[in-house]
Amino acid sequence: MNQHESPTILIVEDDDGIQAIVDEALTEAGYHAAIAPSGEEAVTLLQGNKDKYKGLVTDISLRGRIDGWEVARHAREIHPEFPVVYISAASGADWPSKGVPNSILLQKPFAPAQLVTAISQLLNTGTATT
Amino acid sequence: MNQHESPTILIVEDDDGIQAIVDEALTEAGYHAAIAPSGEEAVTLLQGNKDKYKGLVTDISLRGRIDGWEVARHAREIHPEFPVVYISAASGADWPSKGVPNSILLQKPFAPAQLVTAISQLLNTGTATT
Amino acid sequence: MNQHESPTILIVEDDDGIQAIVDEALTEAGYHAAIAPSGEEAVTLLQGNKDKYKGLVTDISLRGRIDGWEVARHAREIHPEFPVVYISAASGADWPSKGVPNSILLQKPFAPAQLVTAISQLLNTGTATT
Amino acid sequence: MNQHESPTILIVEDDDGIQAIVDEALTEAGYHAAIAPSGEEAVTLLQGNKDKYKGLVTDISLRGRIDGWEVARHAREIHPEFPVVYISAASGADWPSKGVPNSILLQKPFAPAQLVTAISQLLNTGTATT
Amino acid sequence: MNQHESPTILIVEDDDGIQAIVDEALTEAGYHAAIAPSGEEAVTLLQGNKDKYKGLVTDISLRGRIDGWEVARHAREIHPEFPVVYISAASGADWPSKGVPNSILLQKPFAPAQLVTAISQLLNTGTATT
Amino acid sequence: MNQHESPTILIVEDDDGIQAIVDEALTEAGYHAAIAPSGEEAVTLLQGNKDKYKGLVTDISLRGRIDGWEVARHAREIHPEFPVVYISAASGADWPSKGVPNSILLQKPFAPAQLVTAISQLLNTGTATT
Repeated sequence: MNQHESPTILIVEDDDGIQAIVDEALTEAGYHAAIAPSGEEAVTLLQGNKDKYKGLVTDISLRGRIDGWEVARHAREIHPEFPVVYISAASGADWPSKGVPNSILLQKPFAPAQLVTAISQLLNTGTATT
Repeated sequence: MNQHESPTILIVEDDDGIQAIVDEALTEAGYHAAIAPSGEEAVTLLQGNKDKYKGLVTDISLRGRIDGWEVARHAREIHPEFPVVYISAASGADWPSKGVPNSILLQKPFAPAQLVTAISQLLNTGTATT
Repeated sequence: MNQHESPTILIVEDDDGIQAIVDEALTEAGYHAAIAPSGEEAVTLLQGNKDKYKGLVTDISLRGRIDGWEVARHAREIHPEFPVVYISAASGADWPSKGVPNSILLQKPFAPAQLVTAISQLLNTGTATT
Repeated sequence: MNQHESPTILIVEDDDGIQAIVDEALTEAGYHAAIAPSGEEAVTLLQGNKDKYKGLVTDISLRGRIDGWEVARHAREIHPEFPVVYISAASGADWPSKGVPNSILLQKPFAPAQLVTAISQLLNTGTATT
Repeated sequence: MNQHESPTILIVEDDDGIQAIVDEALTEAGYHAAIAPSGEEAVTLLQGNKDKYKGLVTDISLRGRIDGWEVARHAREIHPEFPVVYISAASGADWPSKGVPNSILLQKPFAPAQLVTAISQLLNTGTATT
Repeated sequence: MNQHESPTILIVEDDDGIQAIVDEALTEAGYHAAIAPSGEEAVTLLQGNKDKYKGLVTDISLRGRIDGWEVARHAREIHPEFPVVYISAASGADWPSKGVPNSILLQKPFAPAQLVTAISQLLNTGTATT
């Protein structure tokens, strides 16, 4: 199981510091991490490679016109059971109205283990019920 | 526990037949049922009586400009843990991308017991964790 | 399956009105309902008939020295997976610190279907994992 | 929603008394109940009408060569998320090794509401995640 | 995300060996670990810094008058959704009657990954539903 | 907590590459890993040391006559709540009909963190409800 054989998780993050933390946490956990610096690029990648990505970690606040809530909706239109983890600087108050079902929201600051546990739990549930 | 002391569930439905079935099922189960025939009226009722309604049962397809997905988002903005049950004529394929977290979707035809179990489960979880 | 063959649920309630509602809801749902008007009597019944009762529905506020939180702890000492449903007039704010694990709290006013769904869910989980 | 438009649940039961109780409980709850008196007939029905049945309630002990554990496995081969409720006279000790994932086991005697809650919960989960 | 920006978990443990294992496991997972050697000190810390701690890992047996069950109840009175992980040398038989809802009990010996998964799961659920 | 004091997980795997990955992931997570290269040996080990093993990670395809589905059933006959994680090269389509309740299936390729999260979650649930 070389790295290119690991499940690939798409990270959507325009803050270099958080991007590095998320990338390192997922890579150490044995995932392959792909990075999109904007929501627009994330949607392009998801639509262009429908079977490449196995999960999504997206910041809610992104610089372009497409925020993290919208990226997640696009991902779920492609794969209805796509694992989704949101990262939020704020309190997460919008998650109950804007999040997709069966997703997890992490508030900053979070421990890397929270992220790894979140994406792993969602992936495990996904494989089990498909 | 007279009827006016029961939890009030808001039903958003413009099909008279389904409206009657949902109303009867909830009333027999001991709920008080309030009916809004359009998404616009539902939003007005939810915003005007923030503590009156304890749960939402909404059809996804509604005649006005506001569909069931949007009614649910409004309800969750007012109460983050508001119980939400969607009713859909179709396969429910949009639920993973358009539904709110911790909601339940019923496809027609459904048994009245499915509706009663769905709203009761969501209400019970809500009371337990608030 | 005559009534004496149905699972017996112990109701602990000193308010006659609530007692009647709970009794009727459980009986109509096919349970056998036994009533204890105080926490002390409930504890005596549970200890004297360790295999008779299959679940507990208890008000939190009781007139004697033993409240509903304590009745539930006694029940769980006898049977670690005993289904427990609390009934509370207040907001349920004490449940996270005083409730037992895997229990459900209903706030008044509640619909009878909430009670029936709550005890049935807990019983079903119990039989499934024992 | 006439009865023929309700979801049809297949009951596999060779004891007339239990058959009548299950049939009545499901019918009152708004389901359409179809009855197979043996595992062999149940498998024939499931394979011959792949979209007709929406859930299974099966006794574990059946007179023929096919027991309830095997009927459930056949149902899941046809529909991977098929709701399955087992009925057992004994303690359910075999469920952890012989049951299928995401199923519920009811031990006799059970209240009709337990059966209705069990099948409704499983159906609701199924519609939500498909 | 420097260490002082990570979520702080309060560890209540008077055994130096277990204390070191828990401290190291949480720190490697990216948490900041604060240690209280007694239940009394834990309660003082929790009450004095209501927003500092994000989760609790407590041994059940502690040398003072306040045991782990009581520390957890204090924590939940301050924050109703506070993540709670108990560590027990014994079989965990008291957890169903003395534990708080939505908590996890680890029996010694446990793998560090069990602890990290437990606290991460509870934190993730907490952020998602607040 | 020396390694021999950690929970021992039985790995059933005849592919040396996967065996090494699983062994390393569990050992780094703080588990003690025991390896059986065939289903027959796994069953012998489980029956000969009923309290030694705390969880099972088994490939579905094994060279002998006993496949991973059967190993898991044997383990659950010995301990009804035994944690079970299956590893599958294929799509997992057989899990809903051949898996045991409360198990997790991982499809290759998987990240080591998925395996660690899966077994830890199942162990934590087990200790909590026993």
